Amino acid sequence: MNQISGQHLINGLWVGEPNGGFSSFDPERNEPLPWHFCDASTGELEAAVNAADCAFMEYRLWSAEQRAQLLEAMAEAIDALGETLTRVATRETALPEARLNGERGRTCGQLRLFARQLREPKQPAIIDLAQPDRHPLPKPDIRLDHLPLGPVAVFGASNFPLAFSAAGGDTASALAAGCPVVVKGHPAHPATTELVARAMLAAMEKVGAPRGVFNLLQGQSPRLSQDLVRAPAIQAVGFTGSFKVGQVLSQIAAGRPQPIPFFGELGSLNPQLLLPEKLEQDAEALAEQQHGSMMMGQGQFCTSPGLVLMITGAGGERYLTRLSNLIEQQGPGTMLTPGIARAYAESADQLISSEGVTLVTQGQPCTQANQSRALVASCRGDTLLANPDLLEEVFGPCTLVVTFDGREQLLQAIRTLPGQLTASVHGSEPEMQDERTLVMELAYRVGRLIANQMPTGVEVCHAMQHGGPWPASTHSQSTSVGAEAIKRFTRPLAWQNLPQSLLPQHLSDRSTTPQLRY
Amino acid sequence: MNQISGQHLINGLWVGEPNGGFSSFDPERNEPLPWHFCDASTGELEAAVNAADCAFMEYRLWSAEQRAQLLEAMAEAIDALGETLTRVATRETALPEARLNGERGRTCGQLRLFARQLREPKQPAIIDLAQPDRHPLPKPDIRLDHLPLGPVAVFGASNFPLAFSAAGGDTASALAAGCPVVVKGHPAHPATTELVARAMLAAMEKVGAPRGVFNLLQGQSPRLSQDLVRAPAIQAVGFTGSFKVGQVLSQIAAGRPQPIPFFGELGSLNPQLLLPEKLEQDAEALAEQQHGSMMMGQGQFCTSPGLVLMITGAGGERYLTRLSNLIEQQGPGTMLTPGIARAYAESADQLISSEGVTLVTQGQPCTQANQSRALVASCRGDTLLANPDLLEEVFGPCTLVVTFDGREQLLQAIRTLPGQLTASVHGSEPEMQDERTLVMELAYRVGRLIANQMPTGVEVCHAMQHGGPWPASTHSQSTSVGAEAIKRFTRPLAWQNLPQSLLPQHLSDRSTTPQLRY
Repeated sequence: MNQISGQHLINGLWVGEPNGGFSSFDPERNEPLPWHFCDASTGELEAAVNAADCAFMEYRLWSAEQRAQLLEAMAEAIDALGETLTRVATRETALPEARLNGERGRTCGQLRLFARQLREPKQPAIIDLAQPDRHPLPKPDIRLDHLPLGPVAVFGASNFPLAFSAAGGDTASALAAGCPVVVKGHPAHPATTELVARAMLAAMEKVGAPRGVFNLLQGQSPRLSQDLVRAPAIQAVGFTGSFKVGQVLSQIAAGRPQPIPFFGELGSLNPQLLLPEKLEQDAEALAEQQHGSMMMGQGQFCTSPGLVLMITGAGGERYLTRLSNLIEQQGPGTMLTPGIARAYAESADQLISSEGVTLVTQGQPCTQANQSRALVASCRGDTLLANPDLLEEVFGPCTLVVTFDGREQLLQAIRTLPGQLTASVHGSEPEMQDERTLVMELAYRVGRLIANQMPTGVEVCHAMQHGGPWPASTHSQSTSVGAEAIKRFTRPLAWQNLPQSLLPQHLSDRSTTPQLRY
Repeated sequence: MNQISGQHLINGLWVGEPNGGFSSFDPERNEPLPWHFCDASTGELEAAVNAADCAFMEYRLWSAEQRAQLLEAMAEAIDALGETLTRVATRETALPEARLNGERGRTCGQLRLFARQLREPKQPAIIDLAQPDRHPLPKPDIRLDHLPLGPVAVFGASNFPLAFSAAGGDTASALAAGCPVVVKGHPAHPATTELVARAMLAAMEKVGAPRGVFNLLQGQSPRLSQDLVRAPAIQAVGFTGSFKVGQVLSQIAAGRPQPIPFFGELGSLNPQLLLPEKLEQDAEALAEQQHGSMMMGQGQFCTSPGLVLMITGAGGERYLTRLSNLIEQQGPGTMLTPGIARAYAESADQLISSEGVTLVTQGQPCTQANQSRALVASCRGDTLLANPDLLEEVFGPCTLVVTFDGREQLLQAIRTLPGQLTASVHGSEPEMQDERTLVMELAYRVGRLIANQMPTGVEVCHAMQHGGPWPASTHSQSTSVGAEAIKRFTRPLAWQNLPQSLLPQHLSDRSTTPQLRY
């Protein structure tokens, strides 16, 4: 596998000596892989940020069509990595081939969606026309534009080696917005990241992009991450990861001499609210859906459903029985990294040793290192209300089922839920209408409210919202998935009284794209 | 003036004993006014925030039409205050009647604009339609909504007793978004604020609004402001004021256990770039425009033009001569508060005693307390480049004219400008085309780029952007003026697979408002 250099990509060149760095790791075989990586130095970090800053001068002048071509060329080059990419990523993450092929499809689909969005914007530009004769004062001509913010720092996520890493949603939306990127690759899959970055570099060269428009730094020290957020030229951050790290970096971003927006997605329990009639009717089917969704990616999705809310009753008992049967038969699975496997075991242990929490059932025991064993626990509503720590995410295949004495107690619990990425409500249309108060309360706690579907499988589309009230994300007013994600990396600018020839094309009177004129 | 109680408005009631509080002050006569105000206690602060939080439960269910009626009723009630309001505000601020009547018109116009925006939304809702037969996976139905954030803290500004205070842009946009408000009135015009709040309460009662939807706290202690930003139920902050205070409060907002967005507008120098040919041609007219704009409101506008950039030449000399002549004849004017008058005198002194800065001319000397004397200073481009402190705002009627040796030096200075609310470029269309690089560089430093007009007089319309890169505002991605300001106080929510009967009207298939369907 001689194409893995272990180096950083800075201003179009692969640089860095892999001394004293770190190795890629195979979590399934529990052994290092033969790929060694440099830990980026302060000088390399500065060079990468500087390259992005210089590239911005040119890249911000690129037309939407030019940016679309870059994104498409990247998608094409990543698609062309084919089996090589899957093979390397499988070894680094223990994720199955089918999942990785699907994730590659999603990653490239995302780049292409953003390219289409650039080519054919459907949301109208906002324009106020002049009224020179207005009394007492004339009204000026004002047209609302959106400028790219500048260089963006992107942090690769452990659980999406493709879709939230080098060419993931944050990078794609930043590049679409007109912002150069410095990616800090996740040390859980550095070879995968390098392969993708090589494809992206080839695409940049193909379309003649500024050389510093995409840069990659490898490394595993927390200091590298912190220094990247501190770097003065960085103007925004895209992050997907743990609450702990996200919290630290977000505070750094806010405390800089020039504070910058930090778009962090920090995780979620994704509550499943099972309404009584539906539960009575479909207990077994609901349990099967829960099992399927919680086991996807061995529970390592940010939208993995980790909390089930229901009112005590016969339906609930049938649900628990069916879910237990399925989980009992569930074999162990390898986690993304030894650290994630360890954290899962610890937080699952903590959950089931909490007062009032019962271990309902566990999956088959682990047989190898870095595996996790699925788990279902339960508690009563008053236990949950008395102990908010039970609402901390257990990252992995774990579900806590909470049974409430009645509607009022359930409502109270929903009102104290911390912010979530998603929640689902399972119920018939009439039952949801009757329980509209519960549904609305839940909506105010989440970024996406789902009826009768599971939360895993985030659709990359125009209306998607992926994010939610704190602590699900650090910035509830933006999304990290879908076409709206591009807006995060722009800011509004009003052009007042500008001659037509100086206006950007989409704001001029000759524009062929949609305009809303007032 | 027995209608001034000096109390706080909390949950629809006037409460608080005016013991140990503060008095309203007449800056023109330099004496206290006969109106005494309570300093809000911790208990009163908590009661106001709690009232807003309780009101949110009901107010968030209000339709756009209901909110529009509330805003219109408020506009009507404030209009009806008529001469009484002007008389009180004039005494508290020393602003002329015509200005205050204009500001009342703007304030009410803003409330009515937001009401129209709610009634007839023109920007389309974003909808992804389901594709149940899509392979390999079906596509769900996803519709993008925007929910109000919750209770908003609003800080009244010293320099806009009406348009950025109790019923100002922050309050109007928060109420339009569906968020209750707790206003901390500015101690420079507490009686004015109380009068407006009385009108707002009458409007709330008229339309049957929840009693805690608008609350007013009076006070002058920094602790009250800080505690308001810290209050757990507060979900966002609207602020217009000084860099120093904005910086402190913004850090508190970011450091809360749950960080919240802080929308602060902190001021600006509003550079005026005079292109050489235009300057040569119209030197005198440009100087007259500068004089008119810098003297508006005695220089106490956030968009007051305090910096002029030009290339050395004969036009520049004529410009300075004409500006000097006008300023020499300029009488002194009373500032909004003794503190603002003192700060102006100090920062103006500091500016003209800086190395390399020349005092060009001053207006007529002050004859009374709390007045300010207009001032024009100048320096060379290299002086400015060597001393970034010269780019700190002098809040008041002061202009620094900087002459550059040539285009390259000017470009360099623009690249080092801190973020600004606005900048103007004065030049013919062909000259601006030739200097497109300068224009674009300037655009990247500002929130509004103006051609051949002065920055004062911010149009309240749909395409307006009032805000800019830090430190002009703490949140460059939002505006505090114009219809787009409403969005600050909402966050996106995606509804997935919801039955039609549970969708909000504007997202349902029966909607009559615009939708963009993918």
